[in-house]
Amino acid sequence: MFEQLGLIGCGLMGGSFALAMKRAGLVRRVVGYSKSPSTTERARQLGVIDVEAPSALLAVSGADLVLLAVPVAATESTLKAIRHLIAPNVLIMDVGSTKRDVVDAARRVLKQDVGVFVPCHPATGREVSGVENADADLYTGKQVVLTPIERTRTVQLEQAEALWRALGCPVVRMSPETHDAAFAAISHLPHLLAFALMNSITAQDQGAKFLSLAGPGFRDFSRIAAGDPEMWRDVLVANREELSAQLSHFQHALSDLQRVIDHGQTDELQRLITRASHARANWQLASGASD
Amino acid sequence: MFEQLGLIGCGLMGGSFALAMKRAGLVRRVVGYSKSPSTTERARQLGVIDVEAPSALLAVSGADLVLLAVPVAATESTLKAIRHLIAPNVLIMDVGSTKRDVVDAARRVLKQDVGVFVPCHPATGREVSGVENADADLYTGKQVVLTPIERTRTVQLEQAEALWRALGCPVVRMSPETHDAAFAAISHLPHLLAFALMNSITAQDQGAKFLSLAGPGFRDFSRIAAGDPEMWRDVLVANREELSAQLSHFQHALSDLQRVIDHGQTDELQRLITRASHARANWQLASGASD
Repeated sequence: MFEQLGLIGCGLMGGSFALAMKRAGLVRRVVGYSKSPSTTERARQLGVIDVEAPSALLAVSGADLVLLAVPVAATESTLKAIRHLIAPNVLIMDVGSTKRDVVDAARRVLKQDVGVFVPCHPATGREVSGVENADADLYTGKQVVLTPIERTRTVQLEQAEALWRALGCPVVRMSPETHDAAFAAISHLPHLLAFALMNSITAQDQGAKFLSLAGPGFRDFSRIAAGDPEMWRDVLVANREELSAQLSHFQHALSDLQRVIDHGQTDELQRLITRASHARANWQLASGASD
Repeated sequence: MFEQLGLIGCGLMGGSFALAMKRAGLVRRVVGYSKSPSTTERARQLGVIDVEAPSALLAVSGADLVLLAVPVAATESTLKAIRHLIAPNVLIMDVGSTKRDVVDAARRVLKQDVGVFVPCHPATGREVSGVENADADLYTGKQVVLTPIERTRTVQLEQAEALWRALGCPVVRMSPETHDAAFAAISHLPHLLAFALMNSITAQDQGAKFLSLAGPGFRDFSRIAAGDPEMWRDVLVANREELSAQLSHFQHALSDLQRVIDHGQTDELQRLITRASHARANWQLASGASD
């Protein structure tokens, strides 16, 4: 049970976290701050937060739990804004989709206090955003990846893990590097490919005609291309090194296929497709995994 | 109403067509042939065909409607096997996923008789194959693309169009070239990319770990990678020219994205993602379209 949650960012992710914590009886009071005062006010009107804070620093004052629910690119400036009021026993968490950049920012800003920060990636989201769409069930049953570093304090790490489990989330731990490589492979690269496919088709004279013929295979393959441009811009830039590494692996696999197609090597082509087909047929959705 | 359907290939596609035609009262008798005698026998036992033919030629004898439901790579040899018994008023159709190679084969083999052949691509299919899975509803409501050439006879073309409409299929007409370009863009290329992604991940040491974290976005994006390797081998090879053209368009769009990510050009990146996101959000599944 926490006394006071300092919520920085009262949008979909932050607002839903506050609602979930309250419903579970895990927090007594929520003090919230958003960059836009109207968002903070709306969050209070909707009962998502109890008290409006006029700054990030004041949202953190007196908090024993702090959640950064801001775009990953804003992590460093947010930590700078609050570092002077960080108590040694506070638990600070984030909800960003990339972890190496977040951890680097935390190291730079928090220095010897970085141990109170537990980097978290709850694998959840919605097509919609904003505090109006905050939902106490956004996290329920969704996987949360924790990426502690060597200086992360055990107390905070165990608190974070217990907290997410109390919200109904399966928790896994891995290094920030493994996290970023994994999500580059299974999420960021597929998004990049889906964006490229849409742009590739619409750039052609007959693109609209082509699209009018597309069926369920295309529908499913391209669904993730409809993601939020601002969020994906930040994720792709934040994780560009791992993304670039995954893109190289992908281009290698693609050119293997292309070469045997061009040379009419049907046996080898069937072997490569069979490998892919078996891998996909044997794959199972992770318990609690989400976008 | 047709007197006799000569069905060449009694698998999922051919068997389902026979069942649909019978149920609609559009054919009196079905004479079937499959390369494997046990398939032909099984088709008769299941009531999919009425009479087993010992050869493709004998399946065609006396037929006023012929359906080629064989892999596209077998089109030419099948047409060679039946050309001596093609009557001037017969309607011959196929169900292949590529059309330029099928049309070329028909021109080569049928020569001055090519006008009786109406190239068709019913956009339907199943994860399963074989006559045991034949289903009178496989075609119901699914879009059929007809790709007539300049020598196609009007009578046969109108017969074909009326037949598919009577089975409940929306019909569109286009050139074989446009068809192949369109399906390369919306179906064959997405399959190729999905195959490459699966192979790219599984080739990495941590591939299994990465896959264990994947969520619904990955699930939908990669679903088509589980397609039938033999069928996709044939389709990708048959349509390799258009596929290669679409792959060039795609690589161009991908490198545009990659460049702005590498250079940290966030405004331009957001613009490119927004274009893709809007295109996908505005796209609608075609009436009756399928894989």
